[in-house]
Amino acid sequence: NDSKPTLVHDSEYVIDGRVYGLPEAKVYREDYNGPAVVGEYLTAVPHLAKLDYVGNKTHDVRVDVFSQQVEVAPGVSYSAWTFGGTVPGPVLHVREGDRVVFKMKNRSDKEVVITEPVKDGAPFFSQLQANLYQNNKPVVNPMPHSMDFHSGTVAAEDKWRTISPGETIEFEWIANYPGTYMYHCGTSSVLMHTAMGQYGAVVVSPKDGYPTDDDVDHEYVLVQSEHYLEETNGQYIYNHSAALARDPSHVTFNGHVGALSDTPLRANEGDRVRLHVLNAGPSGTSSFHVIGAIFDRVWYEGDPRNEWYGMQTVLLGASNSATMDFIVPEEGVYKLVDHEFADAERGAAGALIAGPR
Amino acid sequence: NDSKPTLVHDSEYVIDGRVYGLPEAKVYREDYNGPAVVGEYLTAVPHLAKLDYVGNKTHDVRVDVFSQQVEVAPGVSYSAWTFGGTVPGPVLHVREGDRVVFKMKNRSDKEVVITEPVKDGAPFFSQLQANLYQNNKPVVNPMPHSMDFHSGTVAAEDKWRTISPGETIEFEWIANYPGTYMYHCGTSSVLMHTAMGQYGAVVVSPKDGYPTDDDVDHEYVLVQSEHYLEETNGQYIYNHSAALARDPSHVTFNGHVGALSDTPLRANEGDRVRLHVLNAGPSGTSSFHVIGAIFDRVWYEGDPRNEWYGMQTVLLGASNSATMDFIVPEEGVYKLVDHEFADAERGAAGALIAGPR
Amino acid sequence: NDSKPTLVHDSEYVIDGRVYGLPEAKVYREDYNGPAVVGEYLTAVPHLAKLDYVGNKTHDVRVDVFSQQVEVAPGVSYSAWTFGGTVPGPVLHVREGDRVVFKMKNRSDKEVVITEPVKDGAPFFSQLQANLYQNNKPVVNPMPHSMDFHSGTVAAEDKWRTISPGETIEFEWIANYPGTYMYHCGTSSVLMHTAMGQYGAVVVSPKDGYPTDDDVDHEYVLVQSEHYLEETNGQYIYNHSAALARDPSHVTFNGHVGALSDTPLRANEGDRVRLHVLNAGPSGTSSFHVIGAIFDRVWYEGDPRNEWYGMQTVLLGASNSATMDFIVPEEGVYKLVDHEFADAERGAAGALIAGPR
Ligand SMILES: [Cu+2]
Ligand SMILES: [Cu+2]
Ligand SMILES: [Cu+2]
Ligand SMILES: [Cu+2]
Ligand SMILES: [Cu+2]
Ligand SMILES: [Cu+2]
Ligand code: NA
Ligand code: NA
Ligand code: NA
Ligand code: NA
Ligand code: NA
Ligand code: NA
Ligand SMILES: [Zn+2]
Ligand SMILES: [Zn+2]
Ligand SMILES: [Zn+2]
Ligand SMILES: [Zn+2]
Ligand SMILES: [Zn+2]
Ligand SMILES: [Zn+2]
Ligand SMILES: [Zn+2]
Ligand SMILES: [Zn+2]
Ligand SMILES: [Zn+2]
Repeated sequence: NDSKPTLVHDSEYVIDGRVYGLPEAKVYREDYNGPAVVGEYLTAVPHLAKLDYVGNKTHDVRVDVFSQQVEVAPGVSYSAWTFGGTVPGPVLHVREGDRVVFKMKNRSDKEVVITEPVKDGAPFFSQLQANLYQNNKPVVNPMPHSMDFHSGTVAAEDKWRTISPGETIEFEWIANYPGTYMYHCGTSSVLMHTAMGQYGAVVVSPKDGYPTDDDVDHEYVLVQSEHYLEETNGQYIYNHSAALARDPSHVTFNGHVGALSDTPLRANEGDRVRLHVLNAGPSGTSSFHVIGAIFDRVWYEGDPRNEWYGMQTVLLGASNSATMDFIVPEEGVYKLVDHEFADAERGAAGALIAGPR
Repeated sequence: NDSKPTLVHDSEYVIDGRVYGLPEAKVYREDYNGPAVVGEYLTAVPHLAKLDYVGNKTHDVRVDVFSQQVEVAPGVSYSAWTFGGTVPGPVLHVREGDRVVFKMKNRSDKEVVITEPVKDGAPFFSQLQANLYQNNKPVVNPMPHSMDFHSGTVAAEDKWRTISPGETIEFEWIANYPGTYMYHCGTSSVLMHTAMGQYGAVVVSPKDGYPTDDDVDHEYVLVQSEHYLEETNGQYIYNHSAALARDPSHVTFNGHVGALSDTPLRANEGDRVRLHVLNAGPSGTSSFHVIGAIFDRVWYEGDPRNEWYGMQTVLLGASNSATMDFIVPEEGVYKLVDHEFADAERGAAGALIAGPR
Repeated sequence: NDSKPTLVHDSEYVIDGRVYGLPEAKVYREDYNGPAVVGEYLTAVPHLAKLDYVGNKTHDVRVDVFSQQVEVAPGVSYSAWTFGGTVPGPVLHVREGDRVVFKMKNRSDKEVVITEPVKDGAPFFSQLQANLYQNNKPVVNPMPHSMDFHSGTVAAEDKWRTISPGETIEFEWIANYPGTYMYHCGTSSVLMHTAMGQYGAVVVSPKDGYPTDDDVDHEYVLVQSEHYLEETNGQYIYNHSAALARDPSHVTFNGHVGALSDTPLRANEGDRVRLHVLNAGPSGTSSFHVIGAIFDRVWYEGDPRNEWYGMQTVLLGASNSATMDFIVPEEGVYKLVDHEFADAERGAAGALIAGPR
């Protein structure tokens, strides 16, 4: 487990077993109209791909950027800027020490359809089929965008650089630290680009796991975020003043006020459930709580060394995360909420349904 | 100390030494007009009952729900929804592993008087006598309510279910995890029910204690909360828009802007003072600070394993808590504040007065 | 390193190796018009003085209080209340166990010039020369003020007492606990006095250091704060309603929206950079993040025992701090932000520029 990291490029070097000095990003134009999300370990929230390999691996990952009409609440949809066509974008799962070769085409100037499972695409697509809200419609909205992975340690103005519609960027990053990380568009106004829908989660599993891994029965990913929408002539559009004033119209788990209510998480009495919770903001905190449960273990930011016990509520800043386990005490319904009740009332609520033991 | 937990009902089972699978709640009607708060270990804030028993115990506890005219600031009172007649409600103290058999009658359709000490009632009543603000007047306000103990691990839609005026609910929970926990009404709108006054604290002392227990001279309970009141025709009423906008009219410690100023906490120079601080929200954070002191130890959420040292300020999310010790350095006055000064200015301030060594 | 503390005054006593019971503050009038900031270990942000002594030391420190016209953003300046003439005030660096003999004259009734290096003054003055914004102009604004060091454990109503223009206060405090601490004016309205500019940082280095001390290449101090300014007749003045409503006009690192952009922090690829970050509020939280980096180690509130690992973002309450290390992965620009993007957009952004390895 403590094998030396493999260096691939001349520029790379190691500090404390972690790899730095990755090669420069490449920006080019390619003739690509294939699946917008490619990679074996890319899923739709709340799913997390199983890491069916030992040790480390290089992941070839593509997540293209383009616009979609996306629903946030019943009757409330807007023309979102997206990674891979959904808000939040796909979940990437890798292991500490893995290398990611990432490619993203800015297809915001084209209509991209994502509602059908796609040959050569990621598990992401088949999981979308179960998503009640994926009646998304393609939208054309040409716009510069970029990709910033919090899980990567790189020169941001190189790898996270903004590309124009029609351009593709390609760069690598190493999962140097375990944890659950935000990714998002970093193009200015970053408040606007994230509020428009451009964020998602990367789960970097620790190379030696978490101490309770063997007992986990179900594992899910939750992304909390605020939406700042206003109605104008029957259409919902982004309201930058509201975003600046921290006055969200909706706060959601996994992008829709009903995402985790209409299709609740599942478990059984006596199960150990693990949640990877990312608060994507863009500005608010989350006081994450499961009604009827106490978190047996919490790993702040997902690092197994940041361990807390017996917590009723976990406070997360904007782009903070935690990995948390709880025991399902009885058959029944467990509501998940941001215990900042002004936000729960705006939609930050969901549920886990537990069957009998 | 590591004795096996005692199982009482057929449905119960044990995971990691903790008891789950408690019997279903019972809802019935009873002809009860006795004391609204019953239980030896129930006190009024800032008091905490002494646990005068070894090992574990089953607690028979009653806290009835009903309305009272309650003062929040000089000249500002409103018709509160309460547990036991005060805001916050009574403090329950138990030990990790204890069983609580809880009963609550919804008496919101009747006038209930709580200002007199009550035969067979809890220590809570005699402590209220010292509370300057307990000139509370009974109010009739028939309304469904419920009780959600964060200290319990149960099926919420069973135990925390809503009952109508005239109904009584009875259920059990086990104090599986040590810490300081919020309880509150979970009936929709939960933002409104909590903001109307329905919350309080349960302190679950760790079975092996905290490392500094032997040195603690004084121990107090603080509950911070926001109030969203507006004046209409000389009356103060709850303002739901303000609650949604996170724009509190008052932020208090222990329910009144003067609660800990007019009757300050007491200690002496050189004492180790322990505070159990719960931020009940319903929406805001607390940056809890004692002016002139540094927290020698902080146990986040009250679990002895979540230990921090030497902290000037402790950040708490909505329904987060911490147990914290500080040494009183000199004779004098120590102000307690939410160091989010916009909230301190709205009332989140109190004091501890220290006598000579 | 575990030598017994030296007691100096009869009133002093020791608990757990820490000194309490310091003598009463003295308030008097002195004929002093010398340098407003005196002390070898007082620097201008982002600098931190080197502790060029072993063991403990008594520091004679003066920071006078007076008004200055201070710029917060291009074209936005206001008549600030300051410690030492800048916002934030000077950084004091001491070691755990050190004694500080502190003197402050309230010179708010006089014009005090601080833009020139001063004979017998602190390193603070020469560092100001490199500060683009120190075209501050003296302002007369007679006002009572006080000094509250979070790093001190004392009777606040004695040492932190308010003094009038023309008065000098003198008191002592001991750096009993390591960490990065806020200091600020505690005179009512404390929301107003802090928002007007009266705050800064004390760094108390742990007596046994942090575990990575030997590997640190660069060490900087950052103070985040909100400003509540409104324009009236072409002048910017403090807006108390906005401060109460938590609606800042600007949020800054080190007092100016461009402070860390126009004169960025410096390091090289492969360096370990240490930041001491204080969120001075007065009311908001900070979700502190470095774009392109992950914090290898974080010591919450600066205590080496409060250690976290591998964090993308560190959440700080009002008057919370953290000391954090990160490895600079590549040559390039690393933006520092409050990842609460509504605040980043108001100015809470800066940069570190890394040269080649
Ligand atoms: Cu974008
Ligand atoms: Cu709750
Ligand atoms: Cu209720
Ligand atoms: Cu303070
Ligand atoms: Cu002042
Ligand atoms: Cu980011
Ligand atoms: Na991490
Ligand atoms: Na929230
Ligand atoms: Na706990
Ligand atoms: Na607060
Ligand atoms: Na500290
Ligand atoms: Na902030
Ligand atoms: Zn390569
Ligand atoms: Zn699935
Ligand atoms: Zn299961
Ligand atoms: Zn029973
Ligand atoms: Zn008492
Ligand atoms: Zn005492
Ligand atoms: Zn002395
Ligand atoms: Zn310097
Ligand atoms: Zn360097």
